[in-house]
Order: sequence, then C-alpha cells, then structure tokens
Amino acid sequence: MITRFAENPILSPADIIPSHPGMEVALVLNPGAFTYAGKTGLLLRVAERPRQEEGWISTPVLDPAEETGMRILRIRKDDPDLVGDDPRLFAYKGRGYLTMLSHLRLAWSDDGIHFKADPKPTLLGEGKHESFGVEDSRVEFIDGRYWLTYTAVSEFGCAVALISTADWKTFERHGLIFPPHNKDCALFPRKIDGNYWALHRPSGVELGGNYIWTAKSPDLLMWGGHNCLATTRPGMWDCQRVGGGAAPIETDRGWLVIYHGANNNSRYCLGGLLLDLHDPTRVLARSEKPLMEPEEDYEKKGFFGSVVFTNGHVLRGDEITIYYGASDKVICGARAFISDLLKAF
Amino acid sequence: MITRFAENPILSPADIIPSHPGMEVALVLNPGAFTYAGKTGLLLRVAERPRQEEGWISTPVLDPAEETGMRILRIRKDDPDLVGDDPRLFAYKGRGYLTMLSHLRLAWSDDGIHFKADPKPTLLGEGKHESFGVEDSRVEFIDGRYWLTYTAVSEFGCAVALISTADWKTFERHGLIFPPHNKDCALFPRKIDGNYWALHRPSGVELGGNYIWTAKSPDLLMWGGHNCLATTRPGMWDCQRVGGGAAPIETDRGWLVIYHGANNNSRYCLGGLLLDLHDPTRVLARSEKPLMEPEEDYEKKGFFGSVVFTNGHVLRGDEITIYYGASDKVICGARAFISDLLKAF
Repeated sequence: MITRFAENPILSPADIIPSHPGMEVALVLNPGAFTYAGKTGLLLRVAERPRQEEGWISTPVLDPAEETGMRILRIRKDDPDLVGDDPRLFAYKGRGYLTMLSHLRLAWSDDGIHFKADPKPTLLGEGKHESFGVEDSRVEFIDGRYWLTYTAVSEFGCAVALISTADWKTFERHGLIFPPHNKDCALFPRKIDGNYWALHRPSGVELGGNYIWTAKSPDLLMWGGHNCLATTRPGMWDCQRVGGGAAPIETDRGWLVIYHGANNNSRYCLGGLLLDLHDPTRVLARSEKPLMEPEEDYEKKGFFGSVVFTNGHVLRGDEITIYYGASDKVICGARAFISDLLKAF
Repeated sequence: MITRFAENPILSPADIIPSHPGMEVALVLNPGAFTYAGKTGLLLRVAERPRQEEGWISTPVLDPAEETGMRILRIRKDDPDLVGDDPRLFAYKGRGYLTMLSHLRLAWSDDGIHFKADPKPTLLGEGKHESFGVEDSRVEFIDGRYWLTYTAVSEFGCAVALISTADWKTFERHGLIFPPHNKDCALFPRKIDGNYWALHRPSGVELGGNYIWTAKSPDLLMWGGHNCLATTRPGMWDCQRVGGGAAPIETDRGWLVIYHGANNNSRYCLGGLLLDLHDPTRVLARSEKPLMEPEEDYEKKGFFGSVVFTNGHVLRGDEITIYYGASDKVICGARAFISDLLKAF
C-alpha cells in the first residue's frame, strides 16, 4: 500500500555540513515537507554534538553569552551525578539534558527524491525556551503563509512553538503556543467552523498518557478548547505513545490523520485516524494494523530503536509522498495513494 | 508576619454532608475564595470515596451512564495489576486512577471565619475530561463576572478548565484552557498591556520540571505566549515543585504572587514572588525563606504530608485573609498585611 523510494535513505548525516567546526552531524531526521516555487522543500532536523572523547559525555547548549552562540557541557561518564541510559537524554545533578543539539535546515529538490541541503542552519534555537534546540517541524500553507510548528526544547521542558514565513528567507517568530510537555503539533490546512485547528500531543504525569489532542484558535496564536482525541491502545502496536504526523488530509470521507504509535520497545509505526470533516474532535475510524512499520535495514538499525516517524508529506491529487525519519538517524521517502490508505478503515 | 486563625481548622470533613449515601467525605481542602453580596464565599474541594472495606480499594469514577452518575472501581489490594503506595493515586492495569473523587462546593460566612457549607455539591465533574473529578479552584472577579479556574481530572490527565458565573447560581462552562499536565492556574485581576494574564503550572517529562509559567489571552478562553516564570530551586524548601496560589495581588512595588513550594519530602510551604507591574514575565524578587510553613499539628498530621497550600484569599485594603488547605485534609485561615509580606523581598 505504501511504496518506499528505491533511493532510500535520501538524506544521511554525511550529506550535511556541520554548523560549527568541532561539531559533528550525528543524525538527520524527521523533516517537515512542503512545495515552494516549483520545488519540494524539506525542513530537516539536524542533530549535532561535539566529537565525543573516550570516558566523557559532551553536549552543546545554546548560550548567547558565548562567542560561538553555545557552550559545551562536558561530564565524566563515571560522575556520580550523571544518570541515564537513554542515548537521547540524561540527567545531571537532578536536571535533564539532551545528548545532542538540533537545528532546522532547508533542503530542496526538483524531483522530490534527490535533495540538496543548505550549507548552513536555517533556524537555530533562539531564546531561553530553545536553549536545547528545535526539533521535528510540521509545515503547513494557510492563508498565504507557511506556518511551522515545532518542538522548542530547553531546561524548562519541551513545548510547541510557531514560526511563519512567506518566502523561506524571512521568518516571524510567534513564541510558544503550547506549554510543556508537548510535541507533535500539526495544523489543519483550513478553518473549520470559524476556527483554526491543531493536533497536539501533551503528556500526562501519573494520570493520562502520551495521547493525541485537538485544540482550536481564532488566529493560530491563541489556543483553547482542548480535547483528547485518541489514546494509546493497551496490548497493541501503539500502546505506549501516539502523536500526530503532518497536517490532516481532507478527503471525501473525513480528515485523514497519519500518526505515529510506539510500543513499550520504542518500536514506532505509522497508523491512521479518520476524523469528521465538520467536527474534528470526532474519530470516525482508526486503523487496527499499522499502515507502515519498520521493515528495511535502515528503519531497524540506526540511532534509536526500530522507527518510522513522519511529520512531513506532500500531496498531488490522490498521491501522497511521505517523508520520514528512519531509526532516528536518516531521512527516507515513500509513496502511496490516499484512496488506498482509506481502505484501512 | 502571618497570623493563623485561633479557630483553625475552620472546616473539616465532618462539617460536610456527603453527596451520595454510601459515600464518605474524607477531605475538605484547597478552597477558592471571594466576596459576594456582603459575604465571604469559599469554593471548597470536597474529596469523597465509598466506605472502604478491609482488603479492597474502592474508588468512584463519574459515569453519566449510571443512575447515580458514578460507578465504583473496586479492586482487591493483592491484585497483581494494582501498583502504587501514594495515598492519593494508584495505577491499575497500567492506567492511573485517583483514590478519591472531588467536587466543588460553596460555603458562606458573614465574618470570614465561621463558614457553613451548602448541603449539596455546587459543581461536579462533567464530561469526559472530568470523570475523575474537579479540584483546587481559583476564583477571580474580572469585568463583572467571577472566573473559576480549576483542575479537571480524568483518565486523559490533569488539565485546567474554566467556568464563569455572575450570581453563583448559574454557571457557564468554557472547557479546557490548558492541556495536561497542568494545574495551579490563577488569573490576574485585570488586563495588562491589552491582554488577560494567567499563572499556570505545566509539568515537564524528563526535561523541565514542575515550574510556574505565565500565559496571555485576548478573551480568557484562548491562550498563548507561554513563558517559564519561576523554577524549583535545588537544595531549597521549594526544590521539588512550585505552583501559583490565588490571583496575583497588585501593589506599588509589583504583582505579589503567593505560591506553594514543596521539597522532596512533599513538605509544602508558601513563598512569594514579585513581578513587574507592566511585564509580569519579569521576576523582580523572590522570597528566600518561606512566608509560611507547616507548624501547627493540623498542618503536620492529616492525610498527606506536612502541607500548607493556598489557592484562595480575600483582600481588604492592606489586609489579606489567606484560606488554605492544611495537611491536605482540613481548611484553615490566616491573616497578614500586604505591607508586611512585601518586607520578605
């Protein structure tokens, strides 16, 4: 039903020039996707770290007071204040840190398959709420502008921030639209019943979980009317966490949402939700089986787990091109027909 | 500096009539406070549970499909799917539940000390986001109406909901204004720079923590511009969690915020923040020592920990009457002068 590109992976860390000498690009993943001026654009997440030394862990933190714009936190691996065995993050002296710093970078293609990444970062974290970087953008074209929702990461937590642009050269920052802990925010492509709508993924503590919610807004900046849309399903492939992909897709049968679901082994698959066209808080159907799961080597072996994770796609009539992060390390593409995906329901 | 009422505690579980036969009132705590028609009003949090049987844990969950409006979840204490040793919550089959169900109930007083609680609940949880109850309201009078922010609890998590009323008889529900995990929301009493403002307390997962944030809104319903205002302080009395109390108090020197801070032993004290009058994202000062800490027997021995926790106060000139939950079980009062509290900074 979903056909992977023969060219996969289409972007790997070696294709990306580091943002600073002394930094290495460890991962390129989870791109937002769009079309502009006849080209396909990807807004890559590029994750970097200093070259690692034996016995030490070194991670960059953005800091405008430093000449390079960042400082390096360097900790001995046997430091008793260092806690954690997740390759993505650790705790030091009771506070959480990421092992890498991500920025967003544009890549362009004429055919939607062969991409060339810009030599420099497009959007770096800015301000106190982005000192640990910016991640996993969704891009949607609404009312003549591109709207970028992404994860703003800092010592204050993971939140959702918004940036808009008309030309991909100048960007307007609109600040945080959802407070921590929140990720996986995708805007619907048009107003419904007088409001803009979004999917987002707040996380519960002790109660609740990692569930997909909706919210609405008069202006894309101020949000309310939060509603839990879809939870994890015990015993299934999406039992541990779920989160929306890119913008919901308008079809005759409803809004098609491609989402990711992970199990307790952090195996990430893609699934589908179908929402009422006039009331996106109503789930009409949900795929029992994954629409796509990690099968290829590049999806099963990489940085973290068995992962297919999408937050970007491009539509052309009934055809959808899905761009996705594979094993949290490289970027891949796949094609499908919307009409085929709808057969899952 | 803060003088406790000689009459403390002013409300205890025995003073409250259960909402259903077969239920017992276990706790009455954390009231919102206001004045209306010459009286002082408290909006109590009343926590109930079925009478407990030896060897079983029974907890109520709101369910409109049941004749009584609720169903009882009854689990053997030796059930291997039951996990947890916190008296406030447990996990069953991988999902979180509360041990009690809270509603909000009015109590009225002529002198601000002797209160009589209404015989029936004023506000019960309603809808899927409040099936585990409603808790810890803040009440603020803005533009001719009372606005109630409170914690809406359900299997989907803890979120912040909004209700307004002009007469304390009819209530308008405005839904969830902040998604999970969020609590401790207090509205500022007036617009600042064209926007309404709120304190809220989202929680981080892995990164961030239990910190106080601000947000702004054009209409009290839709919120954005989130900003982390104050974090926990390692090694201090507020090292584990902080959260705003009732509405910030306008003074010549800035907005005075009375907040709660807890340490790793869940000892809850009250502290103070002073915010810029024109820009409430700017912290001008913060109390090093607590303004108030658990000292009396009724604050140190009760349901949960050593706790003084406020989310309601009444102002009269320079005098503030602070209503607070003591040891998560009873309601107490205390008086202070704002001018004295400001000496903490």
